[in-house]
Amino acid sequence: MNSYEKLLEFQKVKNSRLCVGLDTDINKLPSPFAKNIDSILDFNAEIIDSTIEHASAYKINFAFYEQYGSKGFEIIKETINLIKDKAFVIADAKRGDIGNTSEAYAKSVYEYFDADSITVAPYMGEDSIIPFLKYDDKMTFILALTSNSGSNDFQRLEINNKPLFMHVIEKSLTWGNEKNIGFVTGATHPSDIELIREFIPNYVLLLPGVGAQGANIERLMIANNNGPCIINASRGVIYAGTGENYKHFVNLKANYYKSEFNKYII
Amino acid sequence: MNSYEKLLEFQKVKNSRLCVGLDTDINKLPSPFAKNIDSILDFNAEIIDSTIEHASAYKINFAFYEQYGSKGFEIIKETINLIKDKAFVIADAKRGDIGNTSEAYAKSVYEYFDADSITVAPYMGEDSIIPFLKYDDKMTFILALTSNSGSNDFQRLEINNKPLFMHVIEKSLTWGNEKNIGFVTGATHPSDIELIREFIPNYVLLLPGVGAQGANIERLMIANNNGPCIINASRGVIYAGTGENYKHFVNLKANYYKSEFNKYII
Repeated sequence: MNSYEKLLEFQKVKNSRLCVGLDTDINKLPSPFAKNIDSILDFNAEIIDSTIEHASAYKINFAFYEQYGSKGFEIIKETINLIKDKAFVIADAKRGDIGNTSEAYAKSVYEYFDADSITVAPYMGEDSIIPFLKYDDKMTFILALTSNSGSNDFQRLEINNKPLFMHVIEKSLTWGNEKNIGFVTGATHPSDIELIREFIPNYVLLLPGVGAQGANIERLMIANNNGPCIINASRGVIYAGTGENYKHFVNLKANYYKSEFNKYII
Repeated sequence: MNSYEKLLEFQKVKNSRLCVGLDTDINKLPSPFAKNIDSILDFNAEIIDSTIEHASAYKINFAFYEQYGSKGFEIIKETINLIKDKAFVIADAKRGDIGNTSEAYAKSVYEYFDADSITVAPYMGEDSIIPFLKYDDKMTFILALTSNSGSNDFQRLEINNKPLFMHVIEKSLTWGNEKNIGFVTGATHPSDIELIREFIPNYVLLLPGVGAQGANIERLMIANNNGPCIINASRGVIYAGTGENYKHFVNLKANYYKSEFNKYII
């Protein structure tokens, strides 16, 4: 089964578009955990355990682990091992470099870590993306319009009456297909998502920005118009509880998001 | 001493703008090395030893190490330890994400690895770059016009009669200064470098593309017009020798590049 089929299967079986973002930060761990690096994997394991019935995907934010160097990289590997076969795994690494270097990044994420998918930055163009797409059984999510305020700086610049992010999407369609590429489009921009959805109704959109970043779920889901998507919440789910009983609140919050999204899916 | 001063000092003392790129690939190691992961650090140590008199900087291409996971991350750390105090260290990692995530990437590269500088991708805009610039004693190199063929896909798109890469440079100048930012501009594009140099005569340019990527040194140096720069060669130096005597050829090649660059510096 390729990554694309795996994603659809997990979403169907769990009746959920929810992706839980494992942006694990030792300073925010609930009270049962010591605030040190050894707690990270234990916390991730408990979060996965509390959310696995509601989450069809997990997104590992590489930066949060890389700040601890090689030990952090080990924790990524072990966390992915915990999720594999139970949900879709997104390596949120925003990689991209010249061809021979992107090949090595693709090897890292798709072979060493064995993730189902990765996020990649498009600025360096075709030869920076193609090495990821050569892993045709995986899904590569290309940044289009990101959820942050900085998305206004370059992504919205207009070229021939079209913003840069639409050029990125158009060009990317010449490199891959609905099964091996998808696009990152911030859930914080519903009116843009509506236009993107019209243009690419069948491509999977990875939609971060729900929860701590404050995206409006109703507007998002209407804009997405039932298209294939993965909706990510990170801090809003994993830090839902602060005390002994945190797992209960984390589970409730995952269920809440799953159900909210489903209200708008026909 | 901040990174900027360190760079200028190493360049002055060694009379060299050469940066050696440690794109270490076990399949390309000279004959004395077994083609396995344990050879990487040994090879890096020998390359550093053979080139340290001619190289004012070293660029660690993170991808080549990340393909080996946590072990690769350890080798990066150990390689940086070997270079520190002897040359300027560039973490060529092309990172960039939303604000709180870029903060973690900055911690990784500037605290855990303790590199002097990093390369970052600008697509996600201001809040993806600022966390790196907060380490005001370090140097953050922002991708402007990269050396690869894919640089034509988006970086050259024209907005108000100016290519995207010039917009990236202009915007970046509002975020930092000559000491904490620099720009990656591929040595393969001398006529663009001429224009960039006119616009920002005093910013440090990181110029990759000499050697295996085939940039013409004379055209490059004339275009750069004596501006502050770091000129990188990776494969062209580190694989200059294939047999027992490889260190001799690596040393000669580093000396060759240093001297070629110096011909055009007044």
